[in-house]
Amino acid sequence: MKTLKIFSPATVANVSCGFDSMGFAVDAIGDEMTFTKTTEKGVKITNITGADLTYDVDKNAASAVVKKILLEANANFGIELTIHKGFSPGSGLGSSAASAAGAAFGVNQFLENKYSELELTKFAMFGEEVACGTPIADNVAAAIYGGFVLVRSYEPLDIIKLPVPEKLRVVAIHPQIEVKTKDAREVLPKEIPLKNAITQWANVGGLVSGLYTNNYELISNSLVDLVAEPARKSLIPFFDEVKESAVKAGALGAGISGSGPTIYALCEGDEIAEKVHNAINEAYKNTGIDFELFISKVNPAGMKIIK
Amino acid sequence: MKTLKIFSPATVANVSCGFDSMGFAVDAIGDEMTFTKTTEKGVKITNITGADLTYDVDKNAASAVVKKILLEANANFGIELTIHKGFSPGSGLGSSAASAAGAAFGVNQFLENKYSELELTKFAMFGEEVACGTPIADNVAAAIYGGFVLVRSYEPLDIIKLPVPEKLRVVAIHPQIEVKTKDAREVLPKEIPLKNAITQWANVGGLVSGLYTNNYELISNSLVDLVAEPARKSLIPFFDEVKESAVKAGALGAGISGSGPTIYALCEGDEIAEKVHNAINEAYKNTGIDFELFISKVNPAGMKIIK
Repeated sequence: MKTLKIFSPATVANVSCGFDSMGFAVDAIGDEMTFTKTTEKGVKITNITGADLTYDVDKNAASAVVKKILLEANANFGIELTIHKGFSPGSGLGSSAASAAGAAFGVNQFLENKYSELELTKFAMFGEEVACGTPIADNVAAAIYGGFVLVRSYEPLDIIKLPVPEKLRVVAIHPQIEVKTKDAREVLPKEIPLKNAITQWANVGGLVSGLYTNNYELISNSLVDLVAEPARKSLIPFFDEVKESAVKAGALGAGISGSGPTIYALCEGDEIAEKVHNAINEAYKNTGIDFELFISKVNPAGMKIIK
Repeated sequence: MKTLKIFSPATVANVSCGFDSMGFAVDAIGDEMTFTKTTEKGVKITNITGADLTYDVDKNAASAVVKKILLEANANFGIELTIHKGFSPGSGLGSSAASAAGAAFGVNQFLENKYSELELTKFAMFGEEVACGTPIADNVAAAIYGGFVLVRSYEPLDIIKLPVPEKLRVVAIHPQIEVKTKDAREVLPKEIPLKNAITQWANVGGLVSGLYTNNYELISNSLVDLVAEPARKSLIPFFDEVKESAVKAGALGAGISGSGPTIYALCEGDEIAEKVHNAINEAYKNTGIDFELFISKVNPAGMKIIK
């Protein structure tokens, strides 16, 4: 194999109650990346489209991951990369994670799948660190494993793949404003009331149970966030209006995707997803803020090889 | 039917990471209660053995529940109760819960099972309130539903029954000291670090996933409590020694049962449970504190009709 083209999905991290521990992969939105094997060692980015990102191989999340893996594997070849960003950095849909995870997955194909999904996640976390300063796992793990994931532990890293109820759909709106991850982190409380923490983990238990049992009502009841959402929603204009319109149109629940500004809603089935899509569109179209809006399946596979 | 004899199980609440939200029923230990239908309305306790509890029908958890249900159902009969406590009040194994839940279950048999498990749980929570001042659900729900339960929400009450991996065994030691529930509540922090809360709910997600997938390793890794155990363990003499000996002997994990002083350990299979039993016995036998020690299956059924 000399060249490879892959799709690396956008991801929704946190999933309301599962702040900093849960995430899922999206099917409709993601990056496309090509990998070309070269006899010359090392990594080079030959083209980036769809977003204005650095070509510096040590500062770009994708190339930094490729470089690290090639070194670690003591590869006797190099890689030339192209990256087509299918969605914007800073959306809260795991843009750097898609690049980093895609890079790890892609290179691994040239190494006879030497590395496990867990190992690829660790490499991709390095890419997150390069891009954002923190080796967060929830987005990259969702991209690599696909479907729903639970980051049970960082030390040691333990990723649990959870089942995806078949009719689950996601509707997401990306208002074209910037929420800096740093700001989204800073508004979080350092401590939370024990009472709220208990509610939060009871809902995590409920969400996980609902995913195993295809219990959409339980999933819906569990999609509550008493921790990040109250602190962060003021950073996202018209958050309450979007959430309310989504739930009113039949969504199972809605919340902030990652650190925002994207707002996601989970729905049961295509018909309700369509209604939720329209309701959110109605709610946002006169706000004066540009936005992108999409419907997607939850992507059970994660990465896909295009050719 | 004129008389009925039932077994109402002891229960382990919290289950380490699931503080105030999870619980499971024990098979080997519980109360036996008899219910005799009388033409005279109202409730009367005719005999209590195994513990020194009040015969005042409004203050005894069991009779208070019976009275409430008979009133609510507008029953044209009364009940005479006997209670044999198979384990001590104040053990942390849900003593008042066993009485209250058993009472609700028993009376329901005379009402053609008019009430659902959820409704019985609500009645039994009233018994908890009578006995302890707080209508806590985790012990009574575990007794009524059997197996593992998750109290996802109080408002509205939502109880999720979780599966029980077949080889799961519990070893529990009840040091014969008193831990007042009030004291155990008072040592808890009102606020907890967000970081610890995240770890805790990631582990709740892991434990729930492990129960669905019979993944004993995942169950083991998830049995971590950063919230109640660090605050409460000083109330329980030799807690660390018991936990360490249990884990060393192969237990999946160990922690405080309810508000203590009972310490529970979960194990995979009879052989390891036996080893853990012996290890805990060794660890405690020279402490100068009397104790009871038992091995049990997790009780998937909860309540049992004896005759």
